[in-house]
Amino acid sequence: MVLKYTAIKYAPVLVFQFILMVLYFIFVRYGGSDEVNVKGFEDTHVMIFIGFGFLMTFLKKYSYSALGFNWLLAALVIQWALLCQSFYHMKDNTIYVTKKSLLEADIMSATVLITFGALLGIASGLQLLFIAIVETAVACLNIWLVSDVFKASDVGGSIAIHTFGAYFGIGVSMALRSREDTTTPTTNGNHVAPVNLNGPSYVSDVTAMIGSIFLWIYWPSFNSGLTNTDAEYQRAVVNTYLSLAAATVTTFVLSAALNKYPGRFDMVHVQNSTLAGGVAVGSVCNMHIGAGGAVAVGIGAGIISVLGYRFLTPKLTKIGILDTCGVNNLHGMPGVYSGLLSILFAALVTTEDYGSEVGTVFEAMKDGRSAGGQALYQFIALAVTLGIALVSGFLTGLMSKLSMFESLKIAERYDDEINWELP
Amino acid sequence: MVLKYTAIKYAPVLVFQFILMVLYFIFVRYGGSDEVNVKGFEDTHVMIFIGFGFLMTFLKKYSYSALGFNWLLAALVIQWALLCQSFYHMKDNTIYVTKKSLLEADIMSATVLITFGALLGIASGLQLLFIAIVETAVACLNIWLVSDVFKASDVGGSIAIHTFGAYFGIGVSMALRSREDTTTPTTNGNHVAPVNLNGPSYVSDVTAMIGSIFLWIYWPSFNSGLTNTDAEYQRAVVNTYLSLAAATVTTFVLSAALNKYPGRFDMVHVQNSTLAGGVAVGSVCNMHIGAGGAVAVGIGAGIISVLGYRFLTPKLTKIGILDTCGVNNLHGMPGVYSGLLSILFAALVTTEDYGSEVGTVFEAMKDGRSAGGQALYQFIALAVTLGIALVSGFLTGLMSKLSMFESLKIAERYDDEINWELP
Amino acid sequence: MVLKYTAIKYAPVLVFQFILMVLYFIFVRYGGSDEVNVKGFEDTHVMIFIGFGFLMTFLKKYSYSALGFNWLLAALVIQWALLCQSFYHMKDNTIYVTKKSLLEADIMSATVLITFGALLGIASGLQLLFIAIVETAVACLNIWLVSDVFKASDVGGSIAIHTFGAYFGIGVSMALRSREDTTTPTTNGNHVAPVNLNGPSYVSDVTAMIGSIFLWIYWPSFNSGLTNTDAEYQRAVVNTYLSLAAATVTTFVLSAALNKYPGRFDMVHVQNSTLAGGVAVGSVCNMHIGAGGAVAVGIGAGIISVLGYRFLTPKLTKIGILDTCGVNNLHGMPGVYSGLLSILFAALVTTEDYGSEVGTVFEAMKDGRSAGGQALYQFIALAVTLGIALVSGFLTGLMSKLSMFESLKIAERYDDEINWELP
Repeated sequence: MVLKYTAIKYAPVLVFQFILMVLYFIFVRYGGSDEVNVKGFEDTHVMIFIGFGFLMTFLKKYSYSALGFNWLLAALVIQWALLCQSFYHMKDNTIYVTKKSLLEADIMSATVLITFGALLGIASGLQLLFIAIVETAVACLNIWLVSDVFKASDVGGSIAIHTFGAYFGIGVSMALRSREDTTTPTTNGNHVAPVNLNGPSYVSDVTAMIGSIFLWIYWPSFNSGLTNTDAEYQRAVVNTYLSLAAATVTTFVLSAALNKYPGRFDMVHVQNSTLAGGVAVGSVCNMHIGAGGAVAVGIGAGIISVLGYRFLTPKLTKIGILDTCGVNNLHGMPGVYSGLLSILFAALVTTEDYGSEVGTVFEAMKDGRSAGGQALYQFIALAVTLGIALVSGFLTGLMSKLSMFESLKIAERYDDEINWELP
Repeated sequence: MVLKYTAIKYAPVLVFQFILMVLYFIFVRYGGSDEVNVKGFEDTHVMIFIGFGFLMTFLKKYSYSALGFNWLLAALVIQWALLCQSFYHMKDNTIYVTKKSLLEADIMSATVLITFGALLGIASGLQLLFIAIVETAVACLNIWLVSDVFKASDVGGSIAIHTFGAYFGIGVSMALRSREDTTTPTTNGNHVAPVNLNGPSYVSDVTAMIGSIFLWIYWPSFNSGLTNTDAEYQRAVVNTYLSLAAATVTTFVLSAALNKYPGRFDMVHVQNSTLAGGVAVGSVCNMHIGAGGAVAVGIGAGIISVLGYRFLTPKLTKIGILDTCGVNNLHGMPGVYSGLLSILFAALVTTEDYGSEVGTVFEAMKDGRSAGGQALYQFIALAVTLGIALVSGFLTGLMSKLSMFESLKIAERYDDEINWELP
Repeated sequence: MVLKYTAIKYAPVLVFQFILMVLYFIFVRYGGSDEVNVKGFEDTHVMIFIGFGFLMTFLKKYSYSALGFNWLLAALVIQWALLCQSFYHMKDNTIYVTKKSLLEADIMSATVLITFGALLGIASGLQLLFIAIVETAVACLNIWLVSDVFKASDVGGSIAIHTFGAYFGIGVSMALRSREDTTTPTTNGNHVAPVNLNGPSYVSDVTAMIGSIFLWIYWPSFNSGLTNTDAEYQRAVVNTYLSLAAATVTTFVLSAALNKYPGRFDMVHVQNSTLAGGVAVGSVCNMHIGAGGAVAVGIGAGIISVLGYRFLTPKLTKIGILDTCGVNNLHGMPGVYSGLLSILFAALVTTEDYGSEVGTVFEAMKDGRSAGGQALYQFIALAVTLGIALVSGFLTGLMSKLSMFESLKIAERYDDEINWELP
């Protein structure tokens, strides 16, 4: 049955919304208010709905869909994530919701929105909704493995959120790959009719900057939101601030250096690689990496990200793995880089640090785990995340090709027309 | 005398600004700083000036006026409201201003901006300023009746702010109704020349989303700003968050279902009905409505609002009652719905709740008022608000038709040209 | 050597970024977390990156450069300012960074961005970067003189940030003045080819409002961020809020009165003069100026600023002193006005205020300085700031004309083309 232009197209979503309501009535209660002063909730909320939403308006005729699907997906996922993430911490079959739970749900929704960035303009609304619901459940399982089973440190979520979201998206994209994408590629690696839609207009690049800059501004709040002590919180804020600043300077310089018109900046780099500093420092931002270390991490992030946009993305596109926003360069590789840094900094903890403030970020080390052991578990967390993301993403992508989800034809890509009544 | 294109057009506003200055010198002093950690002020401030301002930029050639009048009206009203609202709580003829007073003034200005939404593009600058000054005084009287006299619970202002602002606006609109509006209606119910201006452009719909999403993001702060305890605050945040999320999902589904091009979303619904979840939960968000209850309230809000936009607004337009932003569907009906919910939840308080945390949101019940009594007063508050708003709005609208306020001709509607030097 | 279109154009910036990294490794350590609850950091961060950035997008074909250079300059300057400003307070050759340091670095970057506003579209990227690095060092010296040597009160930075940034920019602009700018001026005082680029489009004026309104919203946070007590903090918030509101109303009225099309508003005034209320109250916002006083200060600020835009800027342009954003009217004259007010309010402190809460904003008066003495030092701070800013700005401007910094030709002004790969 073809739902595309029928009134009941999104009816299954409303059914899912009703199921959520019933589950909330049964399982959810208000938690105590001891976490009511949790930091960073409002700022993270802006990142999710304004930041991701507007960043993705950069396509000239996909701004409505970018904003609309970002909003719809996130509104659905935060409700679903509140249940999924709490599933592993239920007491007496009850989920207690606090303001901190809302922050965690917002953070989880970032995973899905990162995946959305890879699929921007190439997946249908029904596909996106199906993918979001599956991904949330798998990502909540993964984050439970990372933090509760492996007891890895990942306060800013660079492993469990950014790496997961990016490679889940790449996995879906690999599954969605069609023969047409690789047979008669045009200059930019894409296809026929909508080729001209896969790019920005002057105004859409300006509105995308609203999203990009708000993400940048509130990233210190995102990375520090789930820290446990004031000292840890302040280190997370300072390190993220410095890493972002250094990544930004590096991005501008490299963008002008590597541009096909040397000396001119490329908006794609400016909108995205500037943010890689926030991802790269995420897993280690609460550690004693030092202010100089934070700057160094940021410089590295800018380099990795701009090089990825300049050299890697065109290659992936050529073999049919589409990644519209280049999330591999903004979230994927910088996330892996952050994971590797977390292995390094765990290994560097010395015996005399035990029990001191330095060691406090590693819960398991307080319980006797060695520095080498912690480093190993950081590695396992990263590797497992990569594996689960790619495999489950690929499988979800395959399922999303079922006719009921109504894949887009190539000529329908990057186009608001199919989803909106336009002026 | 015709002021329209004279230098002294807005001179009376400057006179009013000087009167305000004198009143401030006489009556206003700094209050103590015990309320200095009031939550939600900065977030609400963003809602008033960015949220309402940008939401109303959706018309293709009225973005300057939307942003400009929103700013001018709010800047005037917050000064005026600080006096009007404190008039009823003066001590020794002195008004003590704290950070909390600023939050209350911001919230009060929302009332006027909601009314502005109904009149967007159809009232002149002088009319809007006159209406704003009168409305603020009446709305402050009404809020005093609701909270101090009836002791009704309305922490998010869905009764005293949203319902009042919307029906005051409808009242004005009824008074402004001209025969031309109903005689030769065009397809969308409006008129001749500027008909084509009463709609969005691709870019204006994107800038409107800035406003819409910021309103959505900070609504939990708006609804929880004036709560008294941490537990109440957290419930207000959680309930508003959930209600908004559920209203958003519902809005998208219904929008696609009811569109004349089925399966496609309508930006009017997305920009507005998504927010109805915040209004609908406003009067009850601090109560023990339960997380499932909050989701249910949000689903209902989405349904009411989209149905209103789809079926009711065209009918009202046809009989000449214009409501440019459809505030009846975003603030009016969801506000009444919230008021009705507050009656229900007041009535549901049981005897064993007395004295417990459950009962704390009802000040009067702590002083011995029964659940039924409280429910009755919630009803009275809602009914009185509706009555005062409609009647005073209609009378203010009639007065605003005096020639000194220079009503717009139909050909001047929805047009920045008359108010701005354009590029 | 011509760098303009070479890959290594911005290589010196990357070298500087590496030097910063080394300096951070050597000198910077995490500070204690007792200042972790500093207010206003996130809000100020929005002002710097969204506020200033979007305010400067008003030119029709310079939005990318406005946003890009604003971001690049600020990201560089915050790293550099953290070192420069702390240079005078080092302990054992170590700089301790706290969340409060980040706020101070953000505030310092405003100085450079104000200067950028004067030079918008008329200085090359390399010139801007050179100017920013020099200006930060000089401005940090000046702020040390103002606060540590003269012990002047300037909590909102109207003297050391706004006045300094504006007149440093005017100084640079005087040095950049070319004969062509005064020989064959066109109607708006500028020149040949790009004359038509020195103005807004409908959309660019709307995106500029994003910046303007966010600056306005968070200005109370900016002015109050560095206050020491709750009472001082609340006065700063209340006074800034009232001054901004009154300046806004005044701006609209005067804009319509003085427009060449009387009765219509001018977006230049609305975007800028509305903010003058925040500058004008900056140096005195924590003092007992009274709520009526704050309103009066705001009215004065609106008058000064609109008159400046209407009558002074065209005259300066005619003699070749360009000031693209009119920072003299938004930051310069209102900053001097605030400095003069600080002299007045220092002089008004009476003997009985000594030791009472009224006197607490003046540290030096607690140590025995008289009211007259404090007033004198407020004057010295203002005069020294003006002198250093103009002279060092002029000298920096002269140096920036070295061929290595690649001044723009008149035909290259106000044009993104030279800096960006455009869609």
